[in-house]
Amino acid sequence: MTPLAEKENEKYDFLRGSLDLLILKVVNHGPIHGYAVSQRIQQISRDFFQVPQGSLYPALHRLEDRGWIEAEWKISETGREAKFYALTRKGQKQLEAEIAHWDRFSGAVALILRTTE
Amino acid sequence: MTPLAEKENEKYDFLRGSLDLLILKVVNHGPIHGYAVSQRIQQISRDFFQVPQGSLYPALHRLEDRGWIEAEWKISETGREAKFYALTRKGQKQLEAEIAHWDRFSGAVALILRTTE
Repeated sequence: MTPLAEKENEKYDFLRGSLDLLILKVVNHGPIHGYAVSQRIQQISRDFFQVPQGSLYPALHRLEDRGWIEAEWKISETGREAKFYALTRKGQKQLEAEIAHWDRFSGAVALILRTTE
Repeated sequence: MTPLAEKENEKYDFLRGSLDLLILKVVNHGPIHGYAVSQRIQQISRDFFQVPQGSLYPALHRLEDRGWIEAEWKISETGREAKFYALTRKGQKQLEAEIAHWDRFSGAVALILRTTE
């Protein structure tokens, strides 16, 4: 495995842990169709996160199965029928829980990075 | 899967992405033996990170294989022989790279969480 591939892999590990949070946050401003979710994540993160379709669609289906997002068929801006996602009330609670979890996680990493002894 | 197990699983996803960084940072203050690495990570993170041995030892071996840490047999404080780890010069560069990557990653998540429109 090349160093680049290792770095990409690590980036993917980070993404895997935070993907649900990122999707819930973006869908919270919905209704939004699937492809636009990954575009928004990439755009807002200034290209740091590039969500492959092979990760995006399984994640959307998982979140829908858990009742955190719900889908409705609508006409997209390109005139095609697409599934538009919105957060359910249960999803809003989940989003709040995931944000709290992220705060604890990133706070714990920060504690370790600040250690100097 | 119970909600608790899901939460634990998610915590583990987060841990997987950041474990190398946490270990390199703690070993940077070494030499330190393997078990003490997980104790330090748990202690400094105020019990947020609990690194199972099944994750710790494979990670230590992986970092050693990559030439980022090196091991030496010494007598631990309990009087037993144990492998003590220290960071190599290559490992110090890797630690700097991982800290920079963490900063970019957590910055990208923060950008998305700050979005209000």
